[in-house]
Amino acid sequence: MYDVAVIPGDGIGNEVVEAVEPLLVDVADAHGVSIETTWFDWGSQRYLDEGALMPDDGLDRLEDFDAILLGAVGHPDVPDHVTLRGLRLPITKGFQQHVCKRPAYLFEGVRSPLRGYEGGDIDFVVYRQNTEGEYADVGGREHRGFDNEVAVQASVFTREGTEKLLRPAFEAASERSGHLTNVTKSNAQAHGMVFWDDMVAEVSEDYPDVEVERLLVDAASMDMVRRPDEFDVLVASNLFGDILTDIGGGVMGSLGLAPSTNIDPDGTYPSMFEPVHGSAFDIMGEGIANPLGTVLSASLMFEHLGEDAVAEALWAGVAEQLADADAPRTADIGGSARTVAVTDDLRDRLV
Amino acid sequence: MYDVAVIPGDGIGNEVVEAVEPLLVDVADAHGVSIETTWFDWGSQRYLDEGALMPDDGLDRLEDFDAILLGAVGHPDVPDHVTLRGLRLPITKGFQQHVCKRPAYLFEGVRSPLRGYEGGDIDFVVYRQNTEGEYADVGGREHRGFDNEVAVQASVFTREGTEKLLRPAFEAASERSGHLTNVTKSNAQAHGMVFWDDMVAEVSEDYPDVEVERLLVDAASMDMVRRPDEFDVLVASNLFGDILTDIGGGVMGSLGLAPSTNIDPDGTYPSMFEPVHGSAFDIMGEGIANPLGTVLSASLMFEHLGEDAVAEALWAGVAEQLADADAPRTADIGGSARTVAVTDDLRDRLV
Ligand SMILES: CC(C)[C@H](C(=O)O)[C@@H](O)C(=O)O
Ligand SMILES: CC(C)[C@H](C(=O)O)[C@@H](O)C(=O)O
Repeated sequence: MYDVAVIPGDGIGNEVVEAVEPLLVDVADAHGVSIETTWFDWGSQRYLDEGALMPDDGLDRLEDFDAILLGAVGHPDVPDHVTLRGLRLPITKGFQQHVCKRPAYLFEGVRSPLRGYEGGDIDFVVYRQNTEGEYADVGGREHRGFDNEVAVQASVFTREGTEKLLRPAFEAASERSGHLTNVTKSNAQAHGMVFWDDMVAEVSEDYPDVEVERLLVDAASMDMVRRPDEFDVLVASNLFGDILTDIGGGVMGSLGLAPSTNIDPDGTYPSMFEPVHGSAFDIMGEGIANPLGTVLSASLMFEHLGEDAVAEALWAGVAEQLADADAPRTADIGGSARTVAVTDDLRDRLV
Repeated sequence: MYDVAVIPGDGIGNEVVEAVEPLLVDVADAHGVSIETTWFDWGSQRYLDEGALMPDDGLDRLEDFDAILLGAVGHPDVPDHVTLRGLRLPITKGFQQHVCKRPAYLFEGVRSPLRGYEGGDIDFVVYRQNTEGEYADVGGREHRGFDNEVAVQASVFTREGTEKLLRPAFEAASERSGHLTNVTKSNAQAHGMVFWDDMVAEVSEDYPDVEVERLLVDAASMDMVRRPDEFDVLVASNLFGDILTDIGGGVMGSLGLAPSTNIDPDGTYPSMFEPVHGSAFDIMGEGIANPLGTVLSASLMFEHLGEDAVAEALWAGVAEQLADADAPRTADIGGSARTVAVTDDLRDRLV
């Protein structure tokens, strides 16, 4: 039995999680795996009502769960940095979820905005540093007189935070094609990024079978548009991983399909799983959000828990549904189905 | 008469500048405009031979020119941050070229990698901060014992550097569609980027006719793939502008077509014009590099000098050539012509 903490969060986060959770319970059950979910109504509404997105002892309350399933966090009435600092950052940092692993896969039946790409052509995974770097939240403003004249934003890269990301990425590259793309900006950022490159060189010595290619982030972003099929495993800093995985969501046809994981590679703390998309207040309440990013994130959650049969069933169910031209699909991928129609159809296929 | 400093730089920088310079002289002459060029063999080879990319008094030597035409800088045997710090940074910072204006335009006859886009559909311009931000080159490593444990890279945003970019961008937005997209990452970078947003809000008060949309850099990067036709004027930090304009180069069919400018908005110092592409050592010496990025950059140079007839002739010549299926084109845009065949054809059209 697995205890899963469920934080639907804001906006369509609620809609996708509410539709997906019962499906997960049923699919797991069909494979003899039992999960129990505990729901937390944390998020921006709590901030607006009570002044904090989660309680002070939030991490203590989550610590004993086997995994966390998150919807989305973000609210038009709350500054973005307040939401980020109030929930996701404390969890990812506090639980040492150094690894944000995000696969990008073009499913058969989904139209990429890129000419000439068919299902299966695009299949890469980004390992994004998830606890530090450009998100270190270090900096400030210099006041000269009464004007704000200068602002400093510092990125912090540590040996531990970098290495904890790199080892799983090299492991993955070693198991996949033996090729790893290190995305960096060492020309312009000779302090942080050259340190990063040095760490990559150091860790790569333990993986002589992995060939490392270095690509500057500008070139890598362009290559996502020109030759995404040539990527396999990428490693990137927090910010660069953020950018690359959104482009990845674009080329795989919709951000609504993109899954994400926040993994403590040491397994000391629970890891967290969530779709890449945000809270999308523009379509909130309409019941038309794509639940598949959440389903795929849950697939990665079961993989992380060692329940490969459930993980594979969920992933295969999504692939089968997308390949089926008659199956319901949401507006972001060219259909007009409702969120629950998609999860109901998946249940019919999988349970 | 205009005095133009020409720095071909490294790799294909030499090939494109050598092919384009005589064309510029002739086209200008045909419009009664005379330019005199002075060549500087600065770049990575000089660094390898003499230990510096340019002489100590490099800026003094350039200061009295009306404009600078740069090819490309970068060499496989020289670390990227050495080339950057040795030439481009001193020039852009020293000459207060706060504004990097980069149009992205999908020409008729060029195939975008994006489905369904035809010539003219994509037409936006990125105003990139060019003197500070993430390129401030501030930071260091903390040594603990004999290991490098921590590296810090600081981005620095100043009122002056930000405002000197924003005003020309708002001017451009006001002349174009009245719409400006501010690309930021204020959720994760609450010090530097919130300062940036505050500056945008402050400057926007002077441009009540311009509607400002804020977009996070990850979403903006994805939108470049999904809806690039909806962008018009974008403002972005140094790093974000770098990334967005490379994606822009991708969606306009080839980075080989992308022009760039480094402008001192006060006109105290010479401004610098260069193609966005790099030195491309993989094709160096083959004479097959696309010269059109340099031609378009030169067009922007003449626009900056107030010679609109020359600027328009060059831009229109490129557009006409690309729309002509029988005209020579280089490999990056689907042809097999040599660099000089492209500039010769342009001369036939324009002189
Ligand atoms: C919500 C936001 C803080 C987040 C990020 O920037 O990391 C999002 O864009 C993502 O990619 O998960
Ligand atoms: C050469 C490099 C330093 C440069 C940059 O990062 O600014 C390039 O990528 C560009 O876009 O002009």
